[in-house]
Amino acid sequence: MKKIAGGVTAAKGFMAASAAAGIKYENREDMALIYSQKPCRPAGTFTTNVVKAAPVKWDKAIVTEQEFVQAVVVNAGIANACTGEEGLSYCRQTAQKAAELLDVSENEVLVASTGVIGQQLPMERIVQGVARMALKLEGSKEAGYQAAKAIMTTDTHEKEAAVTFEVGGKQVTIGGMCKGSGMIHPNMCTMLSFLTTDLAISKELLQEALREDVEDTYNMVSVDGDTSTNDTVLLLANGAAENPEITEKNADYETFKQALNMVNQTLAKQMAGDGEGATALFEVKVMGAASKDAAKRLSKSVITSSLTKAAIYGHDANWGRILCAMGYSGVSFDPEKVDLFFESAAGKIQIVQNGVALDYSEEIATKILSEPEVTAIADVKMGKYEAAAWGCDLTYDYVKINADYRS
Amino acid sequence: MKKIAGGVTAAKGFMAASAAAGIKYENREDMALIYSQKPCRPAGTFTTNVVKAAPVKWDKAIVTEQEFVQAVVVNAGIANACTGEEGLSYCRQTAQKAAELLDVSENEVLVASTGVIGQQLPMERIVQGVARMALKLEGSKEAGYQAAKAIMTTDTHEKEAAVTFEVGGKQVTIGGMCKGSGMIHPNMCTMLSFLTTDLAISKELLQEALREDVEDTYNMVSVDGDTSTNDTVLLLANGAAENPEITEKNADYETFKQALNMVNQTLAKQMAGDGEGATALFEVKVMGAASKDAAKRLSKSVITSSLTKAAIYGHDANWGRILCAMGYSGVSFDPEKVDLFFESAAGKIQIVQNGVALDYSEEIATKILSEPEVTAIADVKMGKYEAAAWGCDLTYDYVKINADYRS
Repeated sequence: MKKIAGGVTAAKGFMAASAAAGIKYENREDMALIYSQKPCRPAGTFTTNVVKAAPVKWDKAIVTEQEFVQAVVVNAGIANACTGEEGLSYCRQTAQKAAELLDVSENEVLVASTGVIGQQLPMERIVQGVARMALKLEGSKEAGYQAAKAIMTTDTHEKEAAVTFEVGGKQVTIGGMCKGSGMIHPNMCTMLSFLTTDLAISKELLQEALREDVEDTYNMVSVDGDTSTNDTVLLLANGAAENPEITEKNADYETFKQALNMVNQTLAKQMAGDGEGATALFEVKVMGAASKDAAKRLSKSVITSSLTKAAIYGHDANWGRILCAMGYSGVSFDPEKVDLFFESAAGKIQIVQNGVALDYSEEIATKILSEPEVTAIADVKMGKYEAAAWGCDLTYDYVKINADYRS
Repeated sequence: MKKIAGGVTAAKGFMAASAAAGIKYENREDMALIYSQKPCRPAGTFTTNVVKAAPVKWDKAIVTEQEFVQAVVVNAGIANACTGEEGLSYCRQTAQKAAELLDVSENEVLVASTGVIGQQLPMERIVQGVARMALKLEGSKEAGYQAAKAIMTTDTHEKEAAVTFEVGGKQVTIGGMCKGSGMIHPNMCTMLSFLTTDLAISKELLQEALREDVEDTYNMVSVDGDTSTNDTVLLLANGAAENPEITEKNADYETFKQALNMVNQTLAKQMAGDGEGATALFEVKVMGAASKDAAKRLSKSVITSSLTKAAIYGHDANWGRILCAMGYSGVSFDPEKVDLFFESAAGKIQIVQNGVALDYSEEIATKILSEPEVTAIADVKMGKYEAAAWGCDLTYDYVKINADYRS
């Protein structure tokens, strides 16, 4: 199993295209199209927010009801959320247009949107964008890369990942792209992730693998279980690798799950590190927890603490804020047993032992916290479970970006 | 019932003093002492954080076990949290010193601390501070005001409130002071509130009234039920008004509860508006909820939304973020029924009707949002329950203050 360069076009039989439809941005592409030459089994996980955007409603129905899909149309700039019946009709129109040009059924086309809530899509531009993209579909690495750039909103760079591995003597690939999600409270920003694989696998197992892995990856990105109106992860499997179809939870299934986790964790960390205004990727690892759930809740509580994130921005080893955030997580533990460490490329330092500060060097701690990737490790000594969560520091630029995002 | 000027010395028989003990700040007072000439019934509510500061442990035991108390010693600068047995022994030493000078028992002295977590108190300075304050106790309005200033940390101004009312033909007063709690996630900053009254009331009813009112006031200040290591509200009743003692839930008790709510809500709103770096007090009112709990959870979810707070700073009527924050509150409601309004001294405007944006004037909305006190009102049309929550906008200065608070 190894990471390779590439994104949504890395797996066999997948093509991509992008276009500047002028939805909201000038001088950049803002639409992407993913297309598989062979029909794909679809899987998806969606926002749990009571307020669901129109494309989420459209995709959920298709992923649930359809055995196969062949395309995904994505736009940035407008989220098509809180747009009522009119917004939902635009999902259908977009899918119809793509279906017509790609010679598939409208029920085989998924759609996704990200951007401002409450505005209607400019349908003429969307339809023109779809038409232009249908003509320029390519299976090249470059086409996947341009698609990853086109779906960005406040992201500062595109996010791609791909992994190859072997199943039944055949080479299989999973590739993907995503967009963040600059964030303090990531639950409020849209996270879109599109994954493609040439694996042959049953629809049920594809869905189960995705659902489980999302819990350990995207849902650990500074999220507390809450999601935006548009959050969507789609995984399409077209079977072009020609492996014997995976229909049970055997060793091949486990291999696939590992590869999927590698792709998703890579994308999740890229998202966290590219949080709005972020200068550092902040990782929180909790070990020694009494249960997996406890480990997750503790690490999420720290990763969502604005005070802790502001301290990371200041390169300040403010362990009190970390302990405090663990304390209000709702998880029971003994504060007087906790050990805390900071780690980065510059080294590792223990700050707290059994709940009390050690006489550590602030200078060394600051050096460790000045790296672009910083990890806080808390050992609560209650059991054997671990979890990791990812986020970023809280900076002036976060406020700047979000004080006037709409205009 | 009416609001009057004053704070912890407004009620009969209460005195206060303050001192510059040099715990952490230069050129300002950082300790306060509250003293009642008559023994007081004590009531208190404390942080629910698993990590409890030493003074919280000290006070909890006293409020639970003692029938009467007579003094409170407060310091700013160091929180005495995560300080182990040594920290707890310092609470006792502080109380002992005050008890000796005021001729009471050490179990009649409460203590409270706010500031940095994980450092030990400089006991020599604390003891000297107590000694100086014991000599200068005064019942004047000025002494109360200086005490309110001395307990500040990142607060930009002191916070006091007082109300008088009549019980059984006697004039009764409740006064108080508090310190915030500049905050995004207020659960992580220390909120201390000290309330004094000359009412005669049983210990049980005093505690019950306080516990209930804290739920509707301090706990609605941008908190989601979580609290810092030190959060404390203390209420002392010395009976000096000489009203017939309230021992049952009669009309007098209800009058007292109304007055207590007036004081606490006034203090809570002052805290919210003085959030770290804040330029505006932000109030969220939810109406038409199916239950009181639903109304509270919806309003708290909006008030803690960093994206919404950043939008308020930008005077941006970004209603999508408000609807989104309501959507992930965990409360069930129909997004397509929601009406949203913004209101301030500059007027009131409806932004959303039945979940969809109206064609409102952005210019007027911006004008309304540019006031120093701004209210968002959401009507979910599910029932008859209402709640309000208070917070502030999220600004550059919040990040600045918190990126390097320790140094």
